Amino acid sequence: MEYRRIKDQIASRNSLDISNSEDKDGDTGGDDIESLHGKSLSDVPSSNVATFGGTFSDRSKWKRKSMVTLALTVLTSSQAILIVWSKRAGKYEYSVTTANFLVEALKCALSLAALARIWRKDGVTEDNRLNTTLDEVSVYPIPAALYLVKNLLQYYIFAYVDAPGYQILKNLNIISTGVLYRIILKKKLSEIQWAAFILLCAGCTTAQLNPSSDHVLQTPLQGWIMAIVMALLSGFAGVYTEAIIKKRPSRNINVQNFWLYVFGMAFNAVAILVQDFDAVMNKGFFHGYSLITVLMILNHALSGIAVSMVMKYADNIVKVYSTSVAMLLTAVVSVFLFGFNLSLAFFLGSVVISVSVYLHSVGKSQR
Amino acid sequence: MEYRRIKDQIASRNSLDISNSEDKDGDTGGDDIESLHGKSLSDVPSSNVATFGGTFSDRSKWKRKSMVTLALTVLTSSQAILIVWSKRAGKYEYSVTTANFLVEALKCALSLAALARIWRKDGVTEDNRLNTTLDEVSVYPIPAALYLVKNLLQYYIFAYVDAPGYQILKNLNIISTGVLYRIILKKKLSEIQWAAFILLCAGCTTAQLNPSSDHVLQTPLQGWIMAIVMALLSGFAGVYTEAIIKKRPSRNINVQNFWLYVFGMAFNAVAILVQDFDAVMNKGFFHGYSLITVLMILNHALSGIAVSMVMKYADNIVKVYSTSVAMLLTAVVSVFLFGFNLSLAFFLGSVVISVSVYLHSVGKSQR
Repeated sequence: MEYRRIKDQIASRNSLDISNSEDKDGDTGGDDIESLHGKSLSDVPSSNVATFGGTFSDRSKWKRKSMVTLALTVLTSSQAILIVWSKRAGKYEYSVTTANFLVEALKCALSLAALARIWRKDGVTEDNRLNTTLDEVSVYPIPAALYLVKNLLQYYIFAYVDAPGYQILKNLNIISTGVLYRIILKKKLSEIQWAAFILLCAGCTTAQLNPSSDHVLQTPLQGWIMAIVMALLSGFAGVYTEAIIKKRPSRNINVQNFWLYVFGMAFNAVAILVQDFDAVMNKGFFHGYSLITVLMILNHALSGIAVSMVMKYADNIVKVYSTSVAMLLTAVVSVFLFGFNLSLAFFLGSVVISVSVYLHSVGKSQR
Repeated sequence: MEYRRIKDQIASRNSLDISNSEDKDGDTGGDDIESLHGKSLSDVPSSNVATFGGTFSDRSKWKRKSMVTLALTVLTSSQAILIVWSKRAGKYEYSVTTANFLVEALKCALSLAALARIWRKDGVTEDNRLNTTLDEVSVYPIPAALYLVKNLLQYYIFAYVDAPGYQILKNLNIISTGVLYRIILKKKLSEIQWAAFILLCAGCTTAQLNPSSDHVLQTPLQGWIMAIVMALLSGFAGVYTEAIIKKRPSRNINVQNFWLYVFGMAFNAVAILVQDFDAVMNKGFFHGYSLITVLMILNHALSGIAVSMVMKYADNIVKVYSTSVAMLLTAVVSVFLFGFNLSLAFFLGSVVISVSVYLHSVGKSQR
């Protein structure tokens, strides 16, 4: 109960939270989606995916895919724990917009640092050079626009649903991601993998059930429509980002990230001006920062990069599984760290999610 | 909420309820289980299964299997609805033991009527004659003994768990049935079918969740051990009954049922003497009977026969799926009949159960 209550409170805050960071990494555009339609991405021979300045064997690819997935899972779960920890330490006193800006800036800096290392080792090539064409960079703001609409809708949906209800409805993202992944990226899931995906959605929702969850069933039609539209926007932005990143398989991921994050910085700079201009002017850019704020910014930057890596070397489906498993890990770790009680619903949801992960991997062979 | 509350109340009554009737049909014994071990039942060629005085093609067998399964599902769900209806009409004033006795007697009479028809048509043969050997009939009381122990334990377990908690713990029966089905009947389930079975257990439990379900997690160790022992006893009795019935595939099911129900009558006659002797003596055998009591007895008798048929022509796994789906049907029908509200947990549980049914059938091809 306690765990879920705090989790709901977290979700209802418009601050550095898991959902924010998940979304943020899609706040960027890509090449013309129409041109992607012409050539199915699944047709791109995977041997073309040369990155970090070299090609990899199947085994190495599998290893890299596992590594980035594991990193995303661990970072996402530690993220939620940091949030709970910081809430225990007291209210946030800093401006959320400045923290978001710093996350984007840090990701930019880390991408540049990685690039510098590659340039020293392999020299500047067509694939890892930073400068780009208007054609490549022009669609980066499109997912950002999608997220803008989604975030605007977020304020209106609370007229129809409360915060815990919204948390439940957000699991529709899982279904919308699966459907749009199929439609836009034209990748096939086997029947068993579809069954697993439905189970993942049901399992995540079950794990988040609390005694007042039934309120969500009283959501009026407008609320449902908005929730579905938001899920579609969020899913579309995620899948679109994957399309952008995979469109140029040989392009170095750090260059792609750099451009993604430059747009992220720009959008967040505008947000500072609009929302927190006075606070920053009067109290300073770093007012209210603490050790934990710094840790959270670091964590968000790293998990943001992990999401991009998962998009490049795996896909949105893996991302959804990874963040779902992270939710379970967070809850279990919270039991030890904060003495939370796990509910029977959480246990049942975990069982369903675990079986779903198993079925997803078994279902692979049947595609 | 309302639906579950009433369902829990039903479960807490020691009267004609779904769980009772599920158990009752195993209140009978069978041939020596050791001799069954010698020859795996799955080795018996299915073409040997000649019943109703004739052999069937694969298509007819599939049709018959579907028919008995459908009958069991419809009868089980209408059973629960009758119970709710009768509760609405007021408290039971009749002696439960007399009703149970009449259910067994009616099943006996129906089996004899079916046999009479067969004798007229095909004459008395080795397979459909009523008289039997001591060897055939001697193990019939064994599952009855198992149920006796289980029902005794049922009184003690309430020292550790409340009625709704017990209802939740009873879902362990699903797992124990699967495990014992594998061990005793030596039949294999594919990995996907096992995954489906775990999901069925999680889905049924989720569908029954209510705001106070978390109490069950505070069950002391003794309570858990008793719940597990009871699940094993119940699962063992069910699987043992299947073993008995399938041991002699060519034996007419109505003869097997007749002997099962004769023992059922005997045990219930003893129960009347022990529990309700005074009430029956002072107020009469049929005191407190109403139209709905008669309908319930009729329904229990028919669903008891349906369980036997499912054991003969399908198996315990099909029985478990059938009764789980019946739970969903009952709830949905109750919405229309009694204006019950379905909870989000019920909806999620239903999704998981539905996917489980799908996976069970898909998993068949992989055995």
